[in-house]
Amino acid sequence: MDIDRQKAVLVNGRQQEVVSVCDRGLLYGDGVFETLAVKSGKALEFAWHLERLALGCRRLAIPCPAEEVLQREVDQLCTGQTQAILKIIVTRGTGARGYLAPRKPEVTRIVCLSPRSDFPASFYREGVRVRCCRQRLCDNPALAGIKHLNRLEQVMARNEWHYPEVAEGLMCDYADNVIEATASNIFIVDAGILQTPDLSKAGVEGVMRRRILQLARETGIKTQILPIPLQKLQDADEIFLCNSLIGIWPVRQIGKMRFGVGPITRRLLYAARSYCAIDIHVPT
Amino acid sequence: MDIDRQKAVLVNGRQQEVVSVCDRGLLYGDGVFETLAVKSGKALEFAWHLERLALGCRRLAIPCPAEEVLQREVDQLCTGQTQAILKIIVTRGTGARGYLAPRKPEVTRIVCLSPRSDFPASFYREGVRVRCCRQRLCDNPALAGIKHLNRLEQVMARNEWHYPEVAEGLMCDYADNVIEATASNIFIVDAGILQTPDLSKAGVEGVMRRRILQLARETGIKTQILPIPLQKLQDADEIFLCNSLIGIWPVRQIGKMRFGVGPITRRLLYAARSYCAIDIHVPT
Repeated sequence: MDIDRQKAVLVNGRQQEVVSVCDRGLLYGDGVFETLAVKSGKALEFAWHLERLALGCRRLAIPCPAEEVLQREVDQLCTGQTQAILKIIVTRGTGARGYLAPRKPEVTRIVCLSPRSDFPASFYREGVRVRCCRQRLCDNPALAGIKHLNRLEQVMARNEWHYPEVAEGLMCDYADNVIEATASNIFIVDAGILQTPDLSKAGVEGVMRRRILQLARETGIKTQILPIPLQKLQDADEIFLCNSLIGIWPVRQIGKMRFGVGPITRRLLYAARSYCAIDIHVPT
Repeated sequence: MDIDRQKAVLVNGRQQEVVSVCDRGLLYGDGVFETLAVKSGKALEFAWHLERLALGCRRLAIPCPAEEVLQREVDQLCTGQTQAILKIIVTRGTGARGYLAPRKPEVTRIVCLSPRSDFPASFYREGVRVRCCRQRLCDNPALAGIKHLNRLEQVMARNEWHYPEVAEGLMCDYADNVIEATASNIFIVDAGILQTPDLSKAGVEGVMRRRILQLARETGIKTQILPIPLQKLQDADEIFLCNSLIGIWPVRQIGKMRFGVGPITRRLLYAARSYCAIDIHVPT
């Protein structure tokens, strides 16, 4: 079933596709968002996305919309959708001029459905090519982990290249630790241990990252969260990227370094299948 | 004359007060803005604000609207206004999902008039009380100096206090250098020399800061742009804050440190009068 454009966006529960020019989401990026895969009428990992949304709201001191309200609006948009992408945005709403937040903000709640993205099967079977971005991620413990609307670092990084053969770009902090890619988290396998960067100072704690850490632990793969210096990647046995839409993309190349698609990546790609919207048949 | 609410906002030249929920200004803070004082029907310092807007657009690779177009729309809103505040926002507009910018962005151009702000006369005569914020400003040379829409650092900082007796909050980088206040630039006077922080890694290069540097040079006051460690403030002879709306606010207190309103501050406050919308009679 195709997306009915007339009901693809709800703003505070109403079918409209616009927000006020005075919305602090626009003026300051004063809000948070989530991007979810939709499959067979359901928004996948809804509970965990909502948890992170609530965490982000708490950090920014924005009242988080009630779960029932969001659940109802998400259901309203997703019912009948075979595959799609759902975005939830919560901003501090409008208010007086200036950075000082209104005492009782009336938040803006946006739920928005858009068509699914398709990725080549080769991305899953042979892996993707990745580059290292010049744009750095700044340390900001107050904002680290959450998915807020200040995304110019990612915009700058993603626009460093325009050739389609490179699927993603890695981003480092100023100390040359890899933090994440522009729109995905990174994992590496080192001597059989699954490692992913510590995100306490920068980066987004992805829902798929969380799912993969849990899947790994359940299947007896040892996991570590730690700072990962960029130069450590050259010694990694396996590398992959993940997010809620793509699932897992094995990495076959970073700059001039080449990697194979290894057994742990394959195992997790298979295990993560049902948590994202991807229907790729991958060899296990 | 009061603001006619019906024509207080223009979006791409049309009288409307909304933007698409798919605007990258909302989704990513992917744009720049300017805030101008309006006096006697004119937007003050229009040329310099436009210069900075153009610089910001260039840095973000957003096509900047033509000067004639902006001038016409600004005139349309400002004509007949005794005093007001004008905001200009330029975003990369809508586009496909994701951080990659559309090849030919159709920018969103917002010009928005709002009522003037009033400040107590004592702010100008006796100075303001200021605090030091816990929230830091991250280094980001690619975005430093310009006035982009990613302002969560400022929002976090400004919401650290709610008592009205503190007018502004200073923000430092991670090396404890003062960069600016949440919505203004800072100057100090040290042994007769007017100093203001270097903003090559963080901060906004304010139009009033630029005006003050020029006014100082014209009147024979020596100026320096340099890193200013926070602890240096305790030895400053004079300190003041500035922006396009407030003009100059002498600082009388930062935390427990107290300062007088000095002669260089007074002289510049008087000289800067006509470049902002303030009608305060200040002793020269």
